[in-house]
Amino acid sequence: MKLHHIGIVVPKIQDSLGELTKFLKFEQISLPTLIGSQKVNVCFLKMGEPYLELIEPAGNYSPITNFLNKGGGFHHLCFEVKDIHKEMSEFEKKGAKIVVKPVKGFEDRLIGFVMLSMKNTKCNLIELAEEKNN
Amino acid sequence: MKLHHIGIVVPKIQDSLGELTKFLKFEQISLPTLIGSQKVNVCFLKMGEPYLELIEPAGNYSPITNFLNKGGGFHHLCFEVKDIHKEMSEFEKKGAKIVVKPVKGFEDRLIGFVMLSMKNTKCNLIELAEEKNN
Repeated sequence: MKLHHIGIVVPKIQDSLGELTKFLKFEQISLPTLIGSQKVNVCFLKMGEPYLELIEPAGNYSPITNFLNKGGGFHHLCFEVKDIHKEMSEFEKKGAKIVVKPVKGFEDRLIGFVMLSMKNTKCNLIELAEEKNN
Repeated sequence: MKLHHIGIVVPKIQDSLGELTKFLKFEQISLPTLIGSQKVNVCFLKMGEPYLELIEPAGNYSPITNFLNKGGGFHHLCFEVKDIHKEMSEFEKKGAKIVVKPVKGFEDRLIGFVMLSMKNTKCNLIELAEEKNN
Protein backbone atom coordinates (compact mmCIF):
# COMPACT_ATOMS: atom_id res chain seq x y z
CA MET A 1 0.00 0.00 0.00
CA LYS A 2 1.54 3.26 -1.06
CA LEU A 3 0.16 6.77 -1.21
CA HIS A 4 -0.92 7.47 -4.77
CA HIS A 5 -2.40 10.96 -4.81
CA ILE A 6 -3.94 13.76 -2.76
CA GLY A 7 -7.35 14.85 -4.00
CA ILE A 8 -8.26 18.53 -4.25
CA VAL A 9 -11.85 19.53 -5.02
CA VAL A 10 -12.14 22.60 -7.28
CA PRO A 11 -15.04 24.30 -9.12
CA LYS A 12 -13.37 24.18 -12.58
CA ILE A 13 -10.30 22.12 -13.42
CA GLN A 14 -9.35 24.41 -16.29
CA ASP A 15 -9.33 27.47 -14.04
CA SER A 16 -7.24 25.62 -11.50
CA LEU A 17 -4.76 24.46 -14.11
CA GLY A 18 -4.38 28.09 -15.11
CA GLU A 19 -3.77 29.20 -11.55
CA LEU A 20 -1.41 26.36 -10.73
CA THR A 21 0.61 26.85 -13.90
CA LYS A 22 1.23 30.41 -12.79
CA PHE A 23 2.80 29.36 -9.52
CA LEU A 24 4.05 25.80 -9.59
CA LYS A 25 5.87 23.40 -11.84
CA PHE A 26 4.07 20.19 -12.65
CA GLU A 27 3.57 17.65 -15.41
CA GLN A 28 -0.06 17.35 -16.50
CA ILE A 29 -0.53 13.59 -16.78
CA SER A 30 -4.08 13.53 -18.20
CA LEU A 31 -6.72 15.73 -19.79
CA PRO A 32 -9.75 16.38 -17.56
CA THR A 33 -11.55 13.02 -17.71
CA LEU A 34 -15.08 12.09 -16.71
CA ILE A 35 -15.44 9.42 -14.01
CA GLY A 36 -19.06 8.55 -14.67
CA SER A 37 -19.59 6.43 -11.59
CA GLN A 38 -18.62 9.34 -9.37
CA LYS A 39 -20.07 12.16 -11.49
CA VAL A 40 -16.79 14.04 -11.53
CA ASN A 41 -14.12 15.05 -13.94
CA VAL A 42 -10.57 14.44 -12.78
CA CYS A 43 -7.16 15.53 -13.93
CA PHE A 44 -3.83 14.17 -12.69
CA LEU A 45 -0.77 16.27 -12.08
CA LYS A 46 2.66 14.93 -11.21
CA MET A 47 4.82 16.96 -8.85
CA GLY A 48 7.29 14.35 -7.72
CA GLU A 49 5.38 11.60 -5.95
CA PRO A 50 2.49 11.22 -5.38
CA TYR A 51 0.13 12.89 -7.83
CA LEU A 52 -2.24 15.70 -7.05
CA GLU A 53 -5.70 15.07 -8.45
CA LEU A 54 -8.02 17.93 -9.36
CA ILE A 55 -11.71 16.98 -9.17
CA GLU A 56 -14.62 19.04 -10.45
CA PRO A 57 -18.36 18.24 -10.38
CA ALA A 58 -19.78 16.78 -13.56
CA GLY A 59 -23.45 17.69 -13.36
CA ASN A 60 -25.61 19.16 -10.62
CA TYR A 61 -25.73 16.29 -8.14
CA SER A 62 -22.16 15.16 -7.75
CA PRO A 63 -20.92 13.44 -4.56
CA ILE A 64 -18.52 16.37 -4.15
CA THR A 65 -21.10 19.17 -4.54
CA ASN A 66 -21.66 19.52 -0.80
CA PHE A 67 -17.95 19.58 -0.10
CA LEU A 68 -17.42 22.18 -2.78
CA ASN A 69 -20.25 24.35 -1.46
CA LYS A 70 -18.38 24.44 1.85
CA GLY A 71 -15.28 25.78 0.09
CA GLY A 72 -13.58 22.84 -1.63
CA GLY A 73 -9.87 22.18 -1.18
CA PHE A 74 -8.01 19.13 0.13
CA HIS A 75 -10.45 16.26 -0.03
CA HIS A 76 -8.96 12.77 0.25
CA LEU A 77 -5.85 10.61 0.15
CA CYS A 78 -5.70 7.77 -2.34
CA PHE A 79 -3.81 4.54 -1.78
CA GLU A 80 -2.97 2.02 -4.45
CA VAL A 81 -3.71 -1.56 -3.42
CA LYS A 82 -3.32 -5.01 -4.96
CA ASP A 83 -6.75 -6.38 -4.05
CA ILE A 84 -9.38 -3.72 -3.40
CA HIS A 85 -12.04 -6.13 -2.10
CA LYS A 86 -9.65 -7.60 0.45
CA GLU A 87 -8.42 -4.16 1.57
CA MET A 88 -11.93 -2.70 1.88
CA SER A 89 -12.99 -5.67 3.93
CA GLU A 90 -10.00 -5.11 6.24
CA PHE A 91 -10.83 -1.41 6.60
CA GLU A 92 -14.41 -2.36 7.49
CA LYS A 93 -13.22 -4.82 10.13
CA LYS A 94 -11.22 -1.99 11.72
CA GLY A 95 -14.34 0.15 12.02
CA ALA A 96 -14.09 2.22 8.85
CA LYS A 97 -17.33 2.95 6.98
CA ILE A 98 -17.53 1.97 3.34
CA VAL A 99 -18.73 5.04 1.43
CA VAL A 100 -18.39 3.77 -2.14
CA LYS A 101 -18.06 0.04 -2.92
CA PRO A 102 -15.62 -0.88 -5.71
CA VAL A 103 -16.64 0.77 -8.99
CA LYS A 104 -14.83 1.78 -12.14
CA GLY A 105 -12.76 4.89 -11.55
CA PHE A 106 -9.78 6.71 -13.02
CA GLU A 107 -7.83 4.80 -15.68
CA ASP A 108 -10.63 2.19 -15.57
CA ARG A 109 -9.27 0.91 -12.25
CA LEU A 110 -11.53 -0.44 -9.55
CA ILE A 111 -11.81 2.29 -6.92
CA GLY A 112 -13.68 2.61 -3.64
CA PHE A 113 -13.98 5.05 -0.77
CA VAL A 114 -13.85 4.44 2.98
CA MET A 115 -14.39 6.90 5.82
CA LEU A 116 -12.00 6.27 8.70
CA SER A 117 -13.24 6.68 12.28
CA MET A 118 -10.56 9.18 13.30
CA LYS A 119 -11.51 12.07 15.56
CA ASN A 120 -8.25 13.97 15.63
CA THR A 121 -6.90 13.59 12.15
CA LYS A 122 -9.07 15.27 9.58
CA CYS A 123 -8.01 13.23 6.60
CA ASN A 124 -10.65 10.58 7.08
CA LEU A 125 -11.82 10.12 3.51
CA ILE A 126 -9.60 7.50 1.87
CA GLU A 127 -9.80 6.28 -1.71
CA LEU A 128 -8.49 2.84 -2.60
CA ALA A 129 -7.47 2.17 -6.18
CA GLU A 130 -6.51 -1.24 -7.49
CA GLU A 131 -3.15 -1.54 -9.23
CA LYS A 132 -3.27 -1.32 -13.02
CA ASN A 133 -1.76 -4.72 -13.77
CA ASN A 134 -4.59 -6.63 -12.04
CA MET B 1 11.24 22.11 -7.00
CA LYS B 2 9.56 18.92 -5.89
CA LEU B 3 6.68 18.26 -3.55
CA HIS B 4 8.06 17.35 -0.15
CA HIS B 5 5.08 16.84 2.15
CA ILE B 6 1.42 17.56 2.76
CA GLY B 7 0.74 19.22 6.11
CA ILE B 8 -2.15 18.12 8.30
CA VAL B 9 -3.07 20.15 11.39
CA VAL B 10 -4.15 18.05 14.37
CA PRO B 11 -4.88 18.77 18.05
CA LYS B 12 -2.45 16.13 19.40
CA ILE B 13 0.18 14.37 17.33
CA GLN B 14 0.26 11.36 19.66
CA ASP B 15 -3.49 10.82 19.33
CA SER B 16 -3.20 11.07 15.56
CA LEU B 17 -0.32 8.63 15.43
CA GLY B 18 -2.51 6.20 17.35
CA GLU B 19 -5.40 6.65 14.96
CA LEU B 20 -3.26 6.48 11.84
CA THR B 21 -1.42 3.37 13.04
CA LYS B 22 -4.76 1.66 13.33
CA PHE B 23 -5.64 2.23 9.70
CA LEU B 24 -2.60 2.90 7.58
CA LYS B 25 0.94 1.66 7.09
CA PHE B 26 3.64 4.29 7.45
CA GLU B 27 7.19 4.78 8.62
CA GLN B 28 7.47 7.33 11.43
CA ILE B 29 10.51 9.37 10.40
CA SER B 30 10.80 11.60 13.46
CA LEU B 31 9.60 12.02 17.02
CA PRO B 32 7.26 14.98 17.55
CA THR B 33 9.68 17.91 17.38
CA LEU B 34 9.23 21.53 18.43
CA ILE B 35 9.64 24.15 15.68
CA GLY B 36 10.12 27.13 17.94
CA SER B 37 9.85 29.78 15.25
CA GLN B 38 6.40 28.55 14.34
CA LYS B 39 5.23 27.50 17.81
CA VAL B 40 4.32 24.03 16.65
CA ASN B 41 5.42 20.46 17.12
CA VAL B 42 5.77 18.44 13.95
CA CYS B 43 6.18 14.78 13.15
CA PHE B 44 7.05 13.31 9.76
CA LEU B 45 5.56 10.16 8.35
CA LYS B 46 6.66 8.44 5.18
CA MET B 47 4.02 6.73 3.07
CA GLY B 48 5.82 6.48 -0.23
CA GLU B 49 6.56 9.99 -1.47
CA PRO B 50 6.02 12.65 -0.26
CA TYR B 51 5.82 12.71 3.52
CA LEU B 52 2.75 13.57 5.52
CA GLU B 53 3.50 16.04 8.30
CA LEU B 54 1.41 16.15 11.47
CA ILE B 55 1.43 19.56 13.16
CA GLU B 56 0.10 20.37 16.60
CA PRO B 57 0.09 23.71 18.48
CA ALA B 58 2.89 24.23 20.95
CA GLY B 59 1.43 26.76 23.38
CA ASN B 60 -1.72 28.84 23.33
CA TYR B 61 -0.96 31.29 20.53
CA SER B 62 0.28 29.19 17.66
CA PRO B 63 -0.06 30.32 14.03
CA ILE B 64 -2.21 27.22 13.48
CA THR B 65 -4.60 27.76 16.40
CA ASN B 66 -7.21 29.54 14.29
CA PHE B 67 -7.04 26.88 11.61
CA LEU B 68 -7.40 24.16 14.21
CA ASN B 69 -10.37 25.88 15.85
CA LYS B 70 -12.08 25.69 12.47
CA GLY B 71 -11.57 21.93 12.41
CA GLY B 72 -7.97 21.30 11.37
CA GLY B 73 -7.09 18.88 8.57
CA PHE B 74 -5.19 19.40 5.33
CA HIS B 75 -3.25 22.59 5.74
CA HIS B 76 -0.43 23.17 3.27
CA LEU B 77 1.83 21.70 0.61
CA CYS B 78 5.57 21.92 1.12
CA PHE B 79 8.08 22.17 -1.71
CA GLU B 80 11.79 21.63 -1.36
CA VAL B 81 13.85 24.34 -3.10
CA LYS B 82 17.54 25.01 -3.66
CA ASP B 83 17.52 28.72 -2.79
CA ILE B 84 14.62 29.79 -0.60
CA HIS B 85 15.29 33.53 -0.88
CA LYS B 86 15.31 33.37 -4.67
CA GLU B 87 12.16 31.24 -4.79
CA MET B 88 10.25 33.43 -2.31
CA SER B 89 11.18 36.49 -4.32
CA GLU B 90 9.85 34.81 -7.46
CA PHE B 91 6.60 33.86 -5.73
CA GLU B 92 6.23 37.47 -4.59
CA LYS B 93 6.77 38.77 -8.12
CA LYS B 94 3.94 36.49 -9.29
CA GLY B 95 1.56 38.06 -6.77
CA ALA B 96 1.88 35.61 -3.88
CA LYS B 97 1.87 37.07 -0.37
CA ILE B 98 4.78 36.22 1.89
CA VAL B 99 3.31 34.96 5.16
CA VAL B 100 6.50 33.84 6.93
CA LYS B 101 9.93 35.02 5.77
CA PRO B 102 12.74 32.44 5.87
CA VAL B 103 13.23 31.14 9.42
CA LYS B 104 14.62 27.98 10.93
CA GLY B 105 12.17 25.13 10.56
CA PHE B 106 12.12 21.34 10.52
CA GLU B 107 15.53 19.63 10.44
CA ASP B 108 17.04 23.11 10.96
CA ARG B 109 16.29 23.96 7.35
CA LEU B 110 15.35 27.46 6.27
CA ILE B 111 11.61 27.45 5.72
CA GLY B 112 9.10 30.10 4.69
CA PHE B 113 5.41 30.34 3.87
CA VAL B 114 3.67 32.03 0.94
CA MET B 115 -0.04 32.45 0.28
CA LEU B 116 -0.86 32.02 -3.40
CA SER B 117 -3.51 34.23 -4.99
CA MET B 118 -5.64 31.37 -6.29
CA LYS B 119 -9.42 31.67 -6.15
CA ASN B 120 -10.40 28.23 -7.39
CA THR B 121 -7.81 25.95 -5.93
CA LYS B 122 -7.99 25.82 -2.16
CA CYS B 123 -4.42 24.77 -1.54
CA ASN B 124 -3.07 28.28 -1.34
CA LEU B 125 -0.76 27.97 1.65
CA ILE B 126 2.63 26.80 0.41
CA GLU B 127 5.69 26.10 2.52
CA LEU B 128 9.14 26.34 0.96
CA ALA B 129 11.98 24.39 2.57
CA GLU B 130 15.59 24.73 1.54
CA GLU B 131 17.42 21.53 0.62
CA LYS B 132 19.46 19.98 3.41
CA ASN B 133 22.85 20.10 1.67
CA ASN B 134 22.84 23.92 1.37
